[in-house]
Amino acid sequence: MVNVYFFGEITDKYILGNKGAQLSEMTKIGLPVPPGFTISTKVCIDVIKNKKYPEGLKEEVEANLKRLEEKTGKKFGEPDNPLLVSVRSGSYVSMPGMMDTVLNLGLNEKTLSGLIKQTNDERFAWDSYRRFVQMFGNVVMGVEHKKFEKILSSYKKGRADTDLAVEELKQIVDDYKKLIKEETGREFPDDPREQLYMAIDAVFNSWNNERAIVYRRLNKIPDDAGTAVNVQAMVFGNLGWDSGTGVGFTRNPSTGENKMYGEYLLNAQGEDVVAGLRTPKHIEEMKKDIPQVYEELLRIRNILEKHYRDMQDFEFTIEKGKLYMLQTRTGKRTAQAAIKIAVDMVNEGLINKKEAIMRVKPEQLDQLLHKQIDPKAKEQTKAVTKGLPASPGAAVGRAVFDPDEAFELEEKGEKVVLIREETSPEDIKGMAAAEGILTARGGMTSHAAIVGRSMGKPCVVGCESISIDEKEKKFTVNGTVVKEGDWITIDGGTGEVFLGRLPVVDPKIKGDFEIFMKWVDGFRDIGVRTNADTPKDAQRAREFGAEGIGLARTEHMFFEGDRIKAVREMILADDEDGRRKALEKLLPMQKEDFIRIFKAMDGLPVTIRLLDPPLHEFLPKEDEEIKELAREMGITFEKLKSVVESLKEFNPMLGFRGCRLGVVYPEITEMQVRAIIEAAIEVNKNGGNAKPEIEIPIVSMVEEVEFLKNVIEKVAKGIIEESGVNVEYKIGTMIELPRAAVLADKLAKSLDFFSFGTNDLTQTTFGFSRDDAGKFIPLYIERGILKDDPFQILDRDGVGELMRICIEKARKANPNIEIGICGEHGGEPKSVEFCCEIGLDYVSCSPFRVPIARLAAAQAKIHGNI
Amino acid sequence: MVNVYFFGEITDKYILGNKGAQLSEMTKIGLPVPPGFTISTKVCIDVIKNKKYPEGLKEEVEANLKRLEEKTGKKFGEPDNPLLVSVRSGSYVSMPGMMDTVLNLGLNEKTLSGLIKQTNDERFAWDSYRRFVQMFGNVVMGVEHKKFEKILSSYKKGRADTDLAVEELKQIVDDYKKLIKEETGREFPDDPREQLYMAIDAVFNSWNNERAIVYRRLNKIPDDAGTAVNVQAMVFGNLGWDSGTGVGFTRNPSTGENKMYGEYLLNAQGEDVVAGLRTPKHIEEMKKDIPQVYEELLRIRNILEKHYRDMQDFEFTIEKGKLYMLQTRTGKRTAQAAIKIAVDMVNEGLINKKEAIMRVKPEQLDQLLHKQIDPKAKEQTKAVTKGLPASPGAAVGRAVFDPDEAFELEEKGEKVVLIREETSPEDIKGMAAAEGILTARGGMTSHAAIVGRSMGKPCVVGCESISIDEKEKKFTVNGTVVKEGDWITIDGGTGEVFLGRLPVVDPKIKGDFEIFMKWVDGFRDIGVRTNADTPKDAQRAREFGAEGIGLARTEHMFFEGDRIKAVREMILADDEDGRRKALEKLLPMQKEDFIRIFKAMDGLPVTIRLLDPPLHEFLPKEDEEIKELAREMGITFEKLKSVVESLKEFNPMLGFRGCRLGVVYPEITEMQVRAIIEAAIEVNKNGGNAKPEIEIPIVSMVEEVEFLKNVIEKVAKGIIEESGVNVEYKIGTMIELPRAAVLADKLAKSLDFFSFGTNDLTQTTFGFSRDDAGKFIPLYIERGILKDDPFQILDRDGVGELMRICIEKARKANPNIEIGICGEHGGEPKSVEFCCEIGLDYVSCSPFRVPIARLAAAQAKIHGNI
Repeated sequence: MVNVYFFGEITDKYILGNKGAQLSEMTKIGLPVPPGFTISTKVCIDVIKNKKYPEGLKEEVEANLKRLEEKTGKKFGEPDNPLLVSVRSGSYVSMPGMMDTVLNLGLNEKTLSGLIKQTNDERFAWDSYRRFVQMFGNVVMGVEHKKFEKILSSYKKGRADTDLAVEELKQIVDDYKKLIKEETGREFPDDPREQLYMAIDAVFNSWNNERAIVYRRLNKIPDDAGTAVNVQAMVFGNLGWDSGTGVGFTRNPSTGENKMYGEYLLNAQGEDVVAGLRTPKHIEEMKKDIPQVYEELLRIRNILEKHYRDMQDFEFTIEKGKLYMLQTRTGKRTAQAAIKIAVDMVNEGLINKKEAIMRVKPEQLDQLLHKQIDPKAKEQTKAVTKGLPASPGAAVGRAVFDPDEAFELEEKGEKVVLIREETSPEDIKGMAAAEGILTARGGMTSHAAIVGRSMGKPCVVGCESISIDEKEKKFTVNGTVVKEGDWITIDGGTGEVFLGRLPVVDPKIKGDFEIFMKWVDGFRDIGVRTNADTPKDAQRAREFGAEGIGLARTEHMFFEGDRIKAVREMILADDEDGRRKALEKLLPMQKEDFIRIFKAMDGLPVTIRLLDPPLHEFLPKEDEEIKELAREMGITFEKLKSVVESLKEFNPMLGFRGCRLGVVYPEITEMQVRAIIEAAIEVNKNGGNAKPEIEIPIVSMVEEVEFLKNVIEKVAKGIIEESGVNVEYKIGTMIELPRAAVLADKLAKSLDFFSFGTNDLTQTTFGFSRDDAGKFIPLYIERGILKDDPFQILDRDGVGELMRICIEKARKANPNIEIGICGEHGGEPKSVEFCCEIGLDYVSCSPFRVPIARLAAAQAKIHGNI
Repeated sequence: MVNVYFFGEITDKYILGNKGAQLSEMTKIGLPVPPGFTISTKVCIDVIKNKKYPEGLKEEVEANLKRLEEKTGKKFGEPDNPLLVSVRSGSYVSMPGMMDTVLNLGLNEKTLSGLIKQTNDERFAWDSYRRFVQMFGNVVMGVEHKKFEKILSSYKKGRADTDLAVEELKQIVDDYKKLIKEETGREFPDDPREQLYMAIDAVFNSWNNERAIVYRRLNKIPDDAGTAVNVQAMVFGNLGWDSGTGVGFTRNPSTGENKMYGEYLLNAQGEDVVAGLRTPKHIEEMKKDIPQVYEELLRIRNILEKHYRDMQDFEFTIEKGKLYMLQTRTGKRTAQAAIKIAVDMVNEGLINKKEAIMRVKPEQLDQLLHKQIDPKAKEQTKAVTKGLPASPGAAVGRAVFDPDEAFELEEKGEKVVLIREETSPEDIKGMAAAEGILTARGGMTSHAAIVGRSMGKPCVVGCESISIDEKEKKFTVNGTVVKEGDWITIDGGTGEVFLGRLPVVDPKIKGDFEIFMKWVDGFRDIGVRTNADTPKDAQRAREFGAEGIGLARTEHMFFEGDRIKAVREMILADDEDGRRKALEKLLPMQKEDFIRIFKAMDGLPVTIRLLDPPLHEFLPKEDEEIKELAREMGITFEKLKSVVESLKEFNPMLGFRGCRLGVVYPEITEMQVRAIIEAAIEVNKNGGNAKPEIEIPIVSMVEEVEFLKNVIEKVAKGIIEESGVNVEYKIGTMIELPRAAVLADKLAKSLDFFSFGTNDLTQTTFGFSRDDAGKFIPLYIERGILKDDPFQILDRDGVGELMRICIEKARKANPNIEIGICGEHGGEPKSVEFCCEIGLDYVSCSPFRVPIARLAAAQAKIHGNI
C-alpha cells in the first residue's frame, strides 16, 4: 500500500488533506511549488488505532526524502548544503486545534554552517535556528510558548527581534535548549531525522488532542477523517533584495476587474507582510522592481484562472529571483466583484451560466441594495460599539429617542436615527421616518429587526453596551454620552455604530447585476414573493423581482394616522354595535390601502393576513399615556386602565390573537374582508387585475377555519354579487402552530393555500420566545448545542419535520393546494434551499431579500442537478 | 315496509328513538305501561327529504290507533268514551330544541263530555281541555307561549290555576281559540284526527328547527338520525284519592342501600310533584295509603332491577287504583351509592366485576376523598357567587388576602381561606397554610388550580365576579363586601362561594370502596403514579394506590423557609464561584427532601424533575419588595432591580427555563444530581431501596440531553463509586415541546424514559398560554369550536397525534424506553383512556386523582374487551 505521495502524484484531498492536495495540484499543473511530499491521512488513523506506523512507512518516507533531495539538490542533515523542510498538518477541512507548522526543520549546529554558506548571512541563519528551536520545543515537545517568550524578551529588553546580534541569538538558543531539557527531561534532538519523525508523530497525535476533538464534534467532522503530514522544502523570501514575498488575487476582489491584484515586499518573510511594519507595494510596481518575476507571476495567474476557472487568491515567495507558489485558493470578493467576475467568466467562455450562478453567495447581494458608509471614511474611523447587524445599509442622522419626535423632525427635513430600548408596533411611524434604527435590546428577529428589514431600513439591534436614558434623551456608550441631536452613523450590515456624520455612497449597481439576475430566474422553479404592507414596499419588491405578495400584514396599517384612534374605539366599545361603528371608520382607510397595493401588484397574487396581534398592542401601557388617551377618548382613566389591565397577558405570543380575534369578534373579519373585496372590485372595474388571497392567522383548529371561512364567504359573495364585477379570491391559512401542521389534511380540504409562518412555528416547536431566547441562544451556539440560531436559519430536523408532515398530509388531502412560506426564513438562502427540497410553491420575504431568495432558489435547483 | 310499531313489538332505539324504545321495552317485559305506538325515525328523514309521508303510513297509523282503541276500550274522537293520547318526539338521544309534548290530544267540545263522564269531574275535564288548547296552540300551531299566559293571568288575577271555575275555563278556552285564529289565520282544529296528524307533522318538522340543528352540530349527532313520534294513551293521576303520581329509585341513590326509594302524591299530576306546592310523601307511606299498589310497585321494582341489572329511576301514575309505569332509566347516584350498588350487585350475582367497574364514574371518586359542605346546610344557603371548581372539597375559614398573613394566622391556629387575584409560586407557603384558595383570575389549570389539586386543597379559581382590593384587604361581590377576617366557605367541587361559616362533614368511606378498588386494579394494566413534591403528598398518594412518583417538582422545594434566600443568592451571584457557594447551602436541604421522599416511596420509582421555572419566579417584582430584599441581601436596590429587570421575559412560558438553565449553569444540575444520588445512597445504606429517575425538563434538542446527561453521569458515577453503595438510577426527559416529540427517535437512543408533560405540550401545540386562554376558551366551547378545554381533556387530534408520532419513533429507536405522562391529564378519565390506547407505561397525577386514574385505566381496559 502507498502511504506517502510526492507533490504532483495525486490530488485527492481525503487522502492528502486539503493543504497537501492543493500543493500537489499546483505542482501537477506545472506551477513552481517548493517540492515536498505528503504522508496520507490513512496513516493517522492507523497510528491512532494500532499505536504504531504501518509497515514500510519509514521506507516510503526515506524514499520520498531522497527524491526531495534530488529535486532540490540539497541533502537532509548534510552540513555543507543542508535541505531544510517545513512540516505541516492538514485534514480535508482546515481544523484549528491541531499541531500547525514547524519551519526550518533539519537545522542543527552543523547544518547551520551549511545554511550560512548557502545564504551568506550568519544572522539570518542563527535567527532561523532560534525560531526552529522555539517552534519545535513548543509544538512538538510541548513546552509552553510563554516560557520561550520570557527568555527572548529578557534578551530583547524592549528592542525588536531584528536588533538581536548573532551572539545574543546563540545564547538564546542555549537557554532554549536548557529550558527544554528542564521541562521535558529530554535533550533537544540534534539529528534531523529524529526531528522529522518526532514532528510527524506530533502531527498525528495532535489529531486527538482535546481542542481538535471538540472542534470536530461541533463541526460534525468524522473522527476517522485523520490528518495528513506535509513535508516541504523551505524557501526564503528574506535572503536579499532579489528575494521577497507577497499575496495576490487573479482579479480585483473589490471591483471584479479582470486584472491581477496584489501586494508584495522584497527581502521579507510572510510574517512581515502580516505584521504591517513595512508597507507592502502594489503588485504593479513589481514590473519595475523585478520585471521577469512579474511576467512569471502573470503567466502563473493565467494558468491558475484557466485551471481553477475561478478567481483565486495566492501566496508566493521569491528566493533569489526564483518565484515559488506557496498556496492558492478561491478568492474572497465583494458582491459587486462576484457578479462581475461571474458574468465576465461566462463571456470569456471559462464557465457556464449554471456555474456563474453558483459563484455568488446569495447573502452578498444585500450589499448591492443599500447605501454604504464610504469605505475610505470607515477605514479612518473607529466604531464606538457594535450591535447585531439586523438590516443592512448605512444610516446617518441626529440621535432621537422618541418616535413621535423622529416623525416631526423628519417632516421638518431633518435626518434622524431612532434610538430605542426596543421598538413596539406603536413606534412604526417614527421608524418609517428615521434613516435608521438602533436598539439596545432584542435579537435578529426582534420587532425592530423585522420591521427594519421589511422597510429596507438600516437597523442595528441588541446593542447591549449602550445604556439608554429615554427620559433624559441620551445614551452612554463606553463612557461617551450621545445626546439628542448629536449626529451618529450606523452600519446595519456590520452592526457598527459610529459617532458623528460619516459620508455614505450609493452602491454602484452595474448592468452585470441585471444580466446575472436574468440568468438566475432562468434556473429557478420556486416562486418568490414578498412580505410587504405598503404600496411603496410592494412597488420596490416588484422592482426587485417579486412575483406577488406572500404576506401583507394588515395591523401595520392600523397604526397610521387617525386609524389608531378608530382601532382604540373598537377595542373600548362595550358591545358589538360599538365595535361595528368604529370598524365603519376603518373600512374606507383599509380599502384605500388595498386598492393601492393591488395596483402596485396588478396581475399578481396578494396574500393579505387578517388582523393578527393581541389587542393590547394598540393601547398605551404607561399610566401617563393612559391618562392622556382617556382624556382624548372622553372616558375615565379608570375605565381605560381597567381595559388595559384586562387585556394584559402573561404570554402574549400565546394569547388572544390571530384568528382567535376573528372568532370572538367576527365583525372585525367582516370589515377586513369587505375592505379587501371592495378594493379588488374597484381595481378590476378600472381594468386592473387584483388577485386577493385572504389569510387566516394563528389557526390551531379546523373549526376556526370553518367558522371564519363561512364569515369571509358570506361577506365576499354578497359584495361581489351586488357589484357584478368578477373577483377571484382565495382563502387560506398560516401554518404557524404545530397543531395546524399535524392537522394539515383536515385543514387542506377546505382551503386554497397554506403559508408557513416559520417565525411562530419555530417559537412553538422549540418552545422559545424569540424575544427572550436571546438570553441563551448565543451561549447555546458557543457550546455547540445549537449550530445556528433557528430564527435565522430554518431548523430542518424539528420545524422542518413538522413542515414535511404538514405538506405530505395537505397534498394528499388536496393536491391543488398552494403552499408557501412567509416567515423570515423565506429570504435566508439555506432555508430557501430547504423550501425547494420539500416542494413549496413559493417563498416570500422582505423586499430587500427578494433578489437573495431568487438566487438561493436557483442555486438550490442547480445544486440538485448541476 | 313497517313504519309504525306498537309498544312491545321491537326495542331498537335507532328506529323508535330513546323514549319509544324505553316504553316498548317496559311493555315487552310485562310492565303496566299505558299502551301506544311509535312512528319510526326513518319516517322523519323520509318526510324531510321527500316532503311527503311514505306510502301507506296513514294506514299503519290508523291500524295502530285501532289496536290502541282495542287495548284501552276507548275510541279516538268518540264523544261518549273518548281515547285521549299524548304525542311526543324522541330521537335516539335526548335532544333539546325539538317539539316536546302535547298532552290530552283528542279533546274537543264533544269528547270533553265523554271525559266528564269518564272522570265525573267537569272542572278537571275543562282544565284538561284548556291545557290541551294552550299546548297545541303553542307547540303545534306556533303561537307564542306568553300570549296564552297573558290571557290566563287576566283571569287568574293572582289566584292559583286550581281556583279557576269551570265557567272561567270555558271563557279562557274561547279566548285561546280566538288568539290562535288571529295569530295563525287558522281555526283551532276540532277533529281529533286532524289534531293527531298536525301534531305528528309538527314533531317531524321540529327536527330541522334551528335550535335542534345547532344542538346536533355541537353534539355531533348525525342529521339523518331523525326523531320518532310516540303516541300513547293518556292516564291521569288526579282523578281522586285512589289516583296519584310519583317517582322512585330501585335502590337508595344517596347511600346505595338495597331498598326502594321514592316519593309520591295522591290525586296529583306529575307537574304537581315538580311544582312543589304539596309536599310529597315518602314511598314507605304508600304501604298504608294504598298497600296493593305498593306491593305492585315493589314487584315492578324487582322486575326492573332484574331486567336492567342496574339501579333504575322510574316515574309512575296511579289512575283509579291502577298503576302505570311512564318511564324508567338508569338512576343517577352519589359516588358512595355507586360503589355500594356495584359491590352489592356483584355479591347478589346480578352483574360481574367488569360490569361493576364500569358502573362507577371515575370523576365521582373525588367526592369520596374530600370534606364536603353538609348537604343540609347547603340546601338552606344560597351561594353568593360561583367560580370554576378547580380542586374539590369544602373549605371554611377567615378571608385572608396575603399569603404571609395566611401562614402566620395558621400558625396561631386560625383557619383561613386565601383570596388572591391569582397565585404565584411565591404564595406556596400561604397556600399550604390555608384551608382553601379562591382566585379571581385563572382557569382550571392556573397555578392556584394545579397547586390546589396537588395539595388536595379545595380551590375555586377564575371567580370573575369578585373584585379584590388586596391593598384594602377586602373583596366585593354582588354588592357585598367581605373584609379580612370575615368567615367564608368555598366548595371546590362546584365552584360555589358562600358567606359565613357552613358546617362540613367528613366523607364516609365504606369498606366497599376498598373492595371495589381491589377489583379495579385486577383489570388495569397501565401503571398509576403520582405527582408529589413532598413526603406528605407521597405518603398520601401511596395510600391512594400510587405505584411511584411520576413527577417530583424540585422548584417547590426551593420556596420553603431559608431556601429561597440561598436560591436568591445563587441568582444574584456574579460568577460561577458565587453560584456554587449558594448552591452548597441548598445541597443539604435538597438532599434531606429526597431522603424523605425516597423513604415514603421505598421500593418504588421516583421521577425527579430538575429545576424548571424561569429564575425571575424566585425574585420579587414590586419595588417595595425589591428594596426590602436588597437590604436583606446587603446589596443596593439598583443592583437588585437591574437583575430583576434583566430576568424579565416577554413570554416566560417560552423563556429561559427548564434544561436551558442547566445548560447555561451546569452547576445547578450538578448540585441537584448530587442531592439526589447522595440521598439514594443514604437510604440504600440503611436497608431502603431508592429508585431515582432523573428527569430533564423543556428539552427541544438532542444536544441539550447529551450535554446534561454527561453532567449527570459524571457527578452520579463519582459519588456512587466513592460510596461503594449501589444505586440504580435512570435518566430521562419530559416531552413537552413539539420538537422533542418529532425528534423522539434521536432522544430515545440515549435515554431510559420519557414523560409527556402535556400541560406545556398543549400550550405549544395549540399556541395557547393556559394563563391567557381563559379569555377565549369559554367562548370557543360555547360556539362549538372547541368541544372541551384541551387543558382539561387531552386533545387527541393534535397533541395526541404528536404523542403518537413520538411514541412510534421512540419505541422503534429504543424498545425498552419507559413512557409515561405527568401532565394534569394523567388524572382525567378520558385522557387516561387515551393514554391506555396509545400504549403508555404509566400515568401520573396528583395524589387525590390516583384512585380516579386507577378506575379510568381499568375501564379503558375493559372498554376494549368487555
